[in-house]
Amino acid sequence: MENIKSYMKTVGQQARAASRVIAQADTNAKNRALNNIATAILLNSTKLIAENAKDIAAAKANGLDAASIDRLTLTEKTIKGMAEGLQQIATLPDPIGSISDMSYRPSGIQVGKMRVPLGVIGIIYESRPNVTADAAGLCLKSGNAAILRGGSEALYSNQAIAACVHQGLREAGLPETAVQVVNTTDRAAVGELITMKEYVDVIVPRGGKSLIARISAEAKVPVIKHLDGICHVYIDNEADLVKAIRIADNSKTHRYGVCNAMETLLVNAEVAEKVLPELCSIYLKKGVELRGDDAARKLVAQMKVATEEDWHTEYLAPILSVRVVADLNAAIEHINTYSSQHTDSIVTENYTKAMRFLREVDSASVMVNASTRFADGFEYGLGAEIGISTDKIHARGPVGLEGLTSQKFIVLGNGQIRI
Amino acid sequence: MENIKSYMKTVGQQARAASRVIAQADTNAKNRALNNIATAILLNSTKLIAENAKDIAAAKANGLDAASIDRLTLTEKTIKGMAEGLQQIATLPDPIGSISDMSYRPSGIQVGKMRVPLGVIGIIYESRPNVTADAAGLCLKSGNAAILRGGSEALYSNQAIAACVHQGLREAGLPETAVQVVNTTDRAAVGELITMKEYVDVIVPRGGKSLIARISAEAKVPVIKHLDGICHVYIDNEADLVKAIRIADNSKTHRYGVCNAMETLLVNAEVAEKVLPELCSIYLKKGVELRGDDAARKLVAQMKVATEEDWHTEYLAPILSVRVVADLNAAIEHINTYSSQHTDSIVTENYTKAMRFLREVDSASVMVNASTRFADGFEYGLGAEIGISTDKIHARGPVGLEGLTSQKFIVLGNGQIRI
Repeated sequence: MENIKSYMKTVGQQARAASRVIAQADTNAKNRALNNIATAILLNSTKLIAENAKDIAAAKANGLDAASIDRLTLTEKTIKGMAEGLQQIATLPDPIGSISDMSYRPSGIQVGKMRVPLGVIGIIYESRPNVTADAAGLCLKSGNAAILRGGSEALYSNQAIAACVHQGLREAGLPETAVQVVNTTDRAAVGELITMKEYVDVIVPRGGKSLIARISAEAKVPVIKHLDGICHVYIDNEADLVKAIRIADNSKTHRYGVCNAMETLLVNAEVAEKVLPELCSIYLKKGVELRGDDAARKLVAQMKVATEEDWHTEYLAPILSVRVVADLNAAIEHINTYSSQHTDSIVTENYTKAMRFLREVDSASVMVNASTRFADGFEYGLGAEIGISTDKIHARGPVGLEGLTSQKFIVLGNGQIRI
Repeated sequence: MENIKSYMKTVGQQARAASRVIAQADTNAKNRALNNIATAILLNSTKLIAENAKDIAAAKANGLDAASIDRLTLTEKTIKGMAEGLQQIATLPDPIGSISDMSYRPSGIQVGKMRVPLGVIGIIYESRPNVTADAAGLCLKSGNAAILRGGSEALYSNQAIAACVHQGLREAGLPETAVQVVNTTDRAAVGELITMKEYVDVIVPRGGKSLIARISAEAKVPVIKHLDGICHVYIDNEADLVKAIRIADNSKTHRYGVCNAMETLLVNAEVAEKVLPELCSIYLKKGVELRGDDAARKLVAQMKVATEEDWHTEYLAPILSVRVVADLNAAIEHINTYSSQHTDSIVTENYTKAMRFLREVDSASVMVNASTRFADGFEYGLGAEIGISTDKIHARGPVGLEGLTSQKFIVLGNGQIRI
């Protein structure tokens, strides 16, 4: 324990020192490093797969489930994906140093803001080793130092990827300590990482809800996170029902295990009879289990009973809860009560209702006539995504490079003083 | 203790409920409330002064020092100032609901951001009762509910101001619980306020360093704060020395007890002989005690010895530490080591050095050829200031209405789905 404490302190100090260098690195050096890392990953694919095989063997021996082993596995395809991801980050505009909102004040000074890195980012993730390359790339481009703590089951894979990252940094003349991968599987390392306020500026946990809940509860460093994605689609009585069915179908069935999938469908009572039977037959054909309130169950025989708990549940599975609501007020009331403030969408042709929904629904992403599946950094044009935040402090919604930065005020004067 | 817990829980629940109403209040209603409160304060000035007299009598009986009693005292002038402050907040643009960065994505959806309130703001402050009106006004205009916890020595004054705030809210048709003033002097109330994550979204402490340090250490809710203002002016060898003397004089002597006053002066060795004797004679005439390194002391006989501790000290008093540095690198190194990341200024005519200083000094406000005293919400054009942040998460530098808000993503579609 004392060893872990002192090891993590060293990691933290090195990260803080490296953050000062990487914050000042020019765009070219950062992009060269990103492309170098991509090249190193491609050239070392055989090595990566061999190291990954050690993790897989250990995982199988430890009886890890098939889904986790699948997430853990590196293939030629996932390795190519990692490299392409890094090359794509290299093509994004550099957020650091950009100056905005410069204006003259009556005193004669000119005031505006300059974008700067946060400093040191701690990333805590589970079995996917590709997060190592992805997170390193995003931190690097945004001028931050990174401390990466992957799942213990991916230790060999992550260290092999880290070697490529270090090679790429070195070749670009940047400090290898700008990206450090924690080389112990001791859980105490996480406890240190999330409480070292003097060395770490923000924590981004990526993984399951229980990991994130534990980190949020214990962290002393700010955490960029979301816990649940209980997303809603509300079909209004003035909806275009063709759009409504497309959107409600896509929001639920495009992918089941993702945070921006719809978990509860709300339907205005006036159109429930017109829309639910047709829509539910699509769901049933795709094997989606339906759980509804009494009004919904009257219209769809195969629907099971939804309990209070259902409205609170993120299924991440082919299960959908359905509720018939009297009007827009009831829909907003339901959403602001049960939603996890992730993503909610209204389907309506009515301008005033659309505007009310946008204004009154208190979620990170609020949509009109679009699938909840669009709540994503790439779809929003951020170019990349380190995570999604449902908090309101600092970053909200999909978090790209800008969420890993801050702005300082700059003042350009010509000898001005306060009088 | 159990009573305080349940009292604060009720306050929190009422604030959360009120925050939903105030978030949707239109600009007119909020401005009417602000102007109503200002009017109520002016009409009740006799009552306010009478209630304030009770606090002052108790403070004197308890042996409070003269400076604290001065801060506690309400006069016709300070009451007029409170009212004018509220009327000025009413004239500021409403940040809530403003939409920015809307653009079309290849999928056909249009994505942008809408500014929204944070929710519930907890303000913890010391003896100045005028903060009650000021903080209430800023929270109200930014669509947030407020829980205000003033100094125990100002209890009667704060409750009297709160009555005016409630009257103004009521007359504008807004819930009185949108601004609650904690009516107990029990310190346990603060402990509850800063840990009720479910009811409070951000804490803004206003007061001395020890109050803020204690709150930051114990808070579970995010805190917008700065601890120290160890601000620097660096006079470069390529400075216009007329500007340098004006700025260094003003930064130190315009006001001593403020966070944006200079505490350490750095002078390039090449010009130290030209600038220090003249500048220091100004300081000495104004009664400023000087503490310097050896090189500075050789040029100014009256200068005492500066110790390592001096570079770490925010004097908030007519004391200045002075260091002669070899070049810009040494100046930046000193600042990034000892500065509290509040405000630092360079005086130079050299373009490249000015740009380097702006980029490389890691402080909330970085200036060229201007007095550090400009680091202020009003001087920056924010229209108002709830505090200054030296952190990088969420808000940095002077925090105005915008710092009390967040942005959610909005998506306008026409039936789009993910494919």
